[in-house]
Amino acid sequence: MKNICVALTNRTNYSKLKMVLRELRKYSNVKCRIVLSSTILLERYGSGYEDLQRDGFEIDKRIDCVLMNDSHEAMAKTIGLSVVEHATYFGWRQPEMLIIVGDRFDMVAPAIAASMMNIPIAHIQGGELSGTIDNVIRNVITRFASLHFVATETSARNLIGYGVSQNSVFDYGCPAVEYVSQIDVGDHFDNKRLGKEFKREIDIRAGEKYFMVMIHPDTTNQLDVNMDEVLKAVASFELKAFIFYPNVDAHNSAIVSSIAKYINNDNFYMIRHMPLEGFVHAMAHCSCMISNSSSGIREAASFGVPVINIGYRQADRERNKNVIDIGHRYEELRSTVEDYLDYRFEKENIYFKSSCSNQIVAKIMQFIGEEVCQ
Amino acid sequence: MKNICVALTNRTNYSKLKMVLRELRKYSNVKCRIVLSSTILLERYGSGYEDLQRDGFEIDKRIDCVLMNDSHEAMAKTIGLSVVEHATYFGWRQPEMLIIVGDRFDMVAPAIAASMMNIPIAHIQGGELSGTIDNVIRNVITRFASLHFVATETSARNLIGYGVSQNSVFDYGCPAVEYVSQIDVGDHFDNKRLGKEFKREIDIRAGEKYFMVMIHPDTTNQLDVNMDEVLKAVASFELKAFIFYPNVDAHNSAIVSSIAKYINNDNFYMIRHMPLEGFVHAMAHCSCMISNSSSGIREAASFGVPVINIGYRQADRERNKNVIDIGHRYEELRSTVEDYLDYRFEKENIYFKSSCSNQIVAKIMQFIGEEVCQ
Amino acid sequence: MKNICVALTNRTNYSKLKMVLRELRKYSNVKCRIVLSSTILLERYGSGYEDLQRDGFEIDKRIDCVLMNDSHEAMAKTIGLSVVEHATYFGWRQPEMLIIVGDRFDMVAPAIAASMMNIPIAHIQGGELSGTIDNVIRNVITRFASLHFVATETSARNLIGYGVSQNSVFDYGCPAVEYVSQIDVGDHFDNKRLGKEFKREIDIRAGEKYFMVMIHPDTTNQLDVNMDEVLKAVASFELKAFIFYPNVDAHNSAIVSSIAKYINNDNFYMIRHMPLEGFVHAMAHCSCMISNSSSGIREAASFGVPVINIGYRQADRERNKNVIDIGHRYEELRSTVEDYLDYRFEKENIYFKSSCSNQIVAKIMQFIGEEVCQ
Amino acid sequence: MKNICVALTNRTNYSKLKMVLRELRKYSNVKCRIVLSSTILLERYGSGYEDLQRDGFEIDKRIDCVLMNDSHEAMAKTIGLSVVEHATYFGWRQPEMLIIVGDRFDMVAPAIAASMMNIPIAHIQGGELSGTIDNVIRNVITRFASLHFVATETSARNLIGYGVSQNSVFDYGCPAVEYVSQIDVGDHFDNKRLGKEFKREIDIRAGEKYFMVMIHPDTTNQLDVNMDEVLKAVASFELKAFIFYPNVDAHNSAIVSSIAKYINNDNFYMIRHMPLEGFVHAMAHCSCMISNSSSGIREAASFGVPVINIGYRQADRERNKNVIDIGHRYEELRSTVEDYLDYRFEKENIYFKSSCSNQIVAKIMQFIGEEVCQ
Repeated sequence: MKNICVALTNRTNYSKLKMVLRELRKYSNVKCRIVLSSTILLERYGSGYEDLQRDGFEIDKRIDCVLMNDSHEAMAKTIGLSVVEHATYFGWRQPEMLIIVGDRFDMVAPAIAASMMNIPIAHIQGGELSGTIDNVIRNVITRFASLHFVATETSARNLIGYGVSQNSVFDYGCPAVEYVSQIDVGDHFDNKRLGKEFKREIDIRAGEKYFMVMIHPDTTNQLDVNMDEVLKAVASFELKAFIFYPNVDAHNSAIVSSIAKYINNDNFYMIRHMPLEGFVHAMAHCSCMISNSSSGIREAASFGVPVINIGYRQADRERNKNVIDIGHRYEELRSTVEDYLDYRFEKENIYFKSSCSNQIVAKIMQFIGEEVCQ
Repeated sequence: MKNICVALTNRTNYSKLKMVLRELRKYSNVKCRIVLSSTILLERYGSGYEDLQRDGFEIDKRIDCVLMNDSHEAMAKTIGLSVVEHATYFGWRQPEMLIIVGDRFDMVAPAIAASMMNIPIAHIQGGELSGTIDNVIRNVITRFASLHFVATETSARNLIGYGVSQNSVFDYGCPAVEYVSQIDVGDHFDNKRLGKEFKREIDIRAGEKYFMVMIHPDTTNQLDVNMDEVLKAVASFELKAFIFYPNVDAHNSAIVSSIAKYINNDNFYMIRHMPLEGFVHAMAHCSCMISNSSSGIREAASFGVPVINIGYRQADRERNKNVIDIGHRYEELRSTVEDYLDYRFEKENIYFKSSCSNQIVAKIMQFIGEEVCQ
Repeated sequence: MKNICVALTNRTNYSKLKMVLRELRKYSNVKCRIVLSSTILLERYGSGYEDLQRDGFEIDKRIDCVLMNDSHEAMAKTIGLSVVEHATYFGWRQPEMLIIVGDRFDMVAPAIAASMMNIPIAHIQGGELSGTIDNVIRNVITRFASLHFVATETSARNLIGYGVSQNSVFDYGCPAVEYVSQIDVGDHFDNKRLGKEFKREIDIRAGEKYFMVMIHPDTTNQLDVNMDEVLKAVASFELKAFIFYPNVDAHNSAIVSSIAKYINNDNFYMIRHMPLEGFVHAMAHCSCMISNSSSGIREAASFGVPVINIGYRQADRERNKNVIDIGHRYEELRSTVEDYLDYRFEKENIYFKSSCSNQIVAKIMQFIGEEVCQ
Repeated sequence: MKNICVALTNRTNYSKLKMVLRELRKYSNVKCRIVLSSTILLERYGSGYEDLQRDGFEIDKRIDCVLMNDSHEAMAKTIGLSVVEHATYFGWRQPEMLIIVGDRFDMVAPAIAASMMNIPIAHIQGGELSGTIDNVIRNVITRFASLHFVATETSARNLIGYGVSQNSVFDYGCPAVEYVSQIDVGDHFDNKRLGKEFKREIDIRAGEKYFMVMIHPDTTNQLDVNMDEVLKAVASFELKAFIFYPNVDAHNSAIVSSIAKYINNDNFYMIRHMPLEGFVHAMAHCSCMISNSSSGIREAASFGVPVINIGYRQADRERNKNVIDIGHRYEELRSTVEDYLDYRFEKENIYFKSSCSNQIVAKIMQFIGEEVCQ
């Protein structure tokens, strides 16, 4: 039986590939092997692997490779260690194809290992642009890949411009947005729908205003976001807010420190990990999202939520209409939030296409010479 | 004092950067740090590091990382190990810039490590095309680089097409060809000019016809070259021939085995390593070169030597007029060699530009904010 | 010039070798090279490397190798990574000897690397017994060593019993205890002598009673100490207390969690790192020490401080008279503390011998064939 | 179902554990998991893994970790890499016990990884003495082990002397010798019984005199054996001889080079790997064995074969009566061979005890709480 490997490195990867994994399950003549590495295995980053287990996916291999030190050197070593162990893993499983997604530094490792071992790679979300080292990583991964599943026409054009063969680029939309848009978010916020009980109870009432704050470090410019200012501005509204911990990355400690200062603020819920359905529920009903995360740019539009996007981390990413770009100063943030606190955009999303995951998996099966499910 | 690191992974890298290293020496306010890894450190591959020592260059760090196994898995692990150790090295030296060259798999490691650590990379020989995984590697390295020193106008155009900023691409020519073309090769073959005594004496007389055979494995298609056929054809002429051992690569064992069968052929000199000047001397006077190596495509033209290029390994590389492309069958090879045995092309080379290395180093100095030598 | 390498992996190592490093400095014809790895490099564990810098020692190499995950698997991988990088380091420096100390898991890595590379090892503190995996590690390190500097006659006998040659065992005493016993601790507690300002000011007055609590996880039996019970008992006295964070180790998270619960207890000073002199000052004047750390067993006797030693972690270690052994239950701990709160033992220490470090270094110099300083 | 892991690193390990693996197969309620690393995976060292496959054992994991370079630094790095990957493997399989054998450097890696992860280790062949770094490695492995299966009473005494608990030491004899002594070797040499066809046909007739030569490098003293002298002496008899390639080890290249000089000697059969049964057959009928290998000391006595043991590599190993110790000089070797060429010792072997493997496995089952097969 043929093996297809799917490499996941963080909880977001899983959100993005959930629909694809479900489609893969339908093929009984192909075994889908899930290999986890990096932060998806770490308690400190939300133990993302538990989401897979909860959804009934078997984990074929765990590769623990994250160094403790919060430095760029440690990031590089994490990649090196991960390459070594993915090589051993691929040597064992001999997959026909590796499926990967996105643009995070730790995804370079399975990509390199597979590429060196002549294992074809299907890459999801190539061709996009954002504002940092992610562009480098995304394009590096593109160079290793044989099949490219892009989310927008612009992304397809970008890839072809880079010299990627048109025949290997497929604009089927974003599987994460496909997944998100089919979640039933209900009419109003309901903490029972968050999918998890948190240490501190989330006591937000139906209809109550609240924020979602999700800031990651910009690895090329640590000054791009001042988390102290962001939290000060958010706190000033005296409304409830979900404050999410950042991704693992060199220099995330500044953001973590800022969050720590508000540990006793009763309006703030500090969240390490929220199950995806819960996150989408919370996002759909929040007053506005203050973020430099891609989820603000990509998924939030499906619910018409205003997204106040801070700094340059997402500078070049294609935007829906619900994104408002600002800097990270207190005053600017305060006044922008005031403007959009009661506003709702139309529910439109350029990243959405129906049957996305179904088409992606069908194309992969065709590539490896298997019959396609109907 | 600022550090500039130069990463070398095989003996060819050194040939290519020799002139650049000489230029760097002229800058007393910048320390050039040479870090060696992979096959340049191995006796089996000619102990290339001794060339540097002979030329008076100090080696700052040795990173021994090559696995013994002749497999793609081992290649991948070699990269992983190399990333780990380059990260530690860069963490120690904190260079302003890393200079790298070419498109070999083991050069990915310093490129990734530096990129993760926000160390700008100057890449020499980007934008070219050849016929195998080299294209992938070269483009991956390009994605990590901040400065691109290309050898031809076509290469420059390619890079810009891939989305690289025009301002970071400099068409200064190939420093290896610059070096080669200034070597005094004399009027005829002279074994004293080979720069080394070999186990078996090279008893080729001035004016005697001889071949140079240099075949590397094609890592994506092991059937691209049949070394048995090549050596049978060469042997049939009963002329002297230099037979070079292949690069380290998964599947090089087939080529090594073929060479071993001719161990007792008195016309064949099996060469693991020849100093660059000697190699150029031998190339300049050989009857023809039978090769799938880039040196056949790039450097040989400077001497008008016919190059019979076998298979697809160099399929897409820009050619000078002296290159004749054929397959690897005995008859085709025999008849082609017959046609060109007494022929000489004009001494022209599209890869050559004068002052190449001088300009490269000046641009690097400008980039890191140092004054440029006159 | 000959190189002697000294490998340090945590802040305690440095405390132990401080006197030895000072002695080594006196030999101008031998270069002492300090290589740091593991937790001594990590902010989370007190950035022990800063102590060296403050004392004017040059750090020759930093090897960042600690994985983030709090698991035994991660501990093992940390060792593997550390072996790889120490091998490269020793290959570069080619030392005549490696000096190491103690029994911590991460010290196995330099020991293996040096042993494989035929670099003689001088090991300080072999032959002792404690109650956990430390015994295994200590004996493993002993097996790799060529010179053994032990602290007591019993330790010497143990080593010889294990088959170590009598000629390689030297009972010169413990250099850490030598160092500690020459520190001027003054007549009473003085927070200015702690050598550092802490986030929360240490407002203990001269003559005020206070505790020192230092509990590490027992890696073979996580139930050996119940930190919740310990802290509850300590808190019940309503006296000030220094609570020290544990060493990095699989399963330290339970202890860290217990400490976190008392974050708002005003009597408790949570300490990640205290400079050695400050620690000794605090220890010398505390009412009693509640601990399962070796410092309670070894150094505290020099000041006559009662040490309430909990659990089996130090079960087999040779004791001075000031050590009272108990379990970890609340009641037992409370009543024992009550008994010794106002008691002082005589200042005697079986681990102390004068001129210890001087003799150790002289012997090492003799071993590598260098003349001995007078 | 409980897992027991068996780690093998070279072809000799497998020979030693073959009987143990067969016994383990009888336990249907315990899964025996075989993990291979180091030279057993390498073609250059005889592809020992094929022996397992031929005998129907399933390989659970392959860990490719040997560096190419022939240096002590590379040996150390091989261990480091191997520790990393064994940790991941043990993390996945969570075995109740790890079984290992012997004293080779590459076996330290699984021992460390298991020890760090609190996986009990059963070590076979502890307590013996030989003449090099093997003693260090063997004792290090002993320190990590919980069960010790020794081959002689002397070995048992040694272990207990080292402080190992008497209750964990079991003198059940050597399972390799048990295996060898039950092989039917027939009445005379028969090349069909070698179990393999070699590149050059082995044309030794029944009753014809021949030698077996098996020399490994002494890693602590490269001058201990002069292979040139050995081969010159052997060649001078003009009798057939099996010449075995050495183990992987730093500095094996000198021995390999010596062998290469005799590549055209028609009396010499250069052997990289001979299946165990074939090896025993050849050993049983040879005129004498010239060796510094443990198989000369241990197994050969079962057949009364004279063993001329060269140098100090096996200096301290317990001997049977059939072992004659000499240096490596031509004259001494020639005259000793002459003395013993037609001699046969009695078939006695201190390393032999019946039911050895059966008892070892029964004890292991008892240890992990499984019922013992009758």
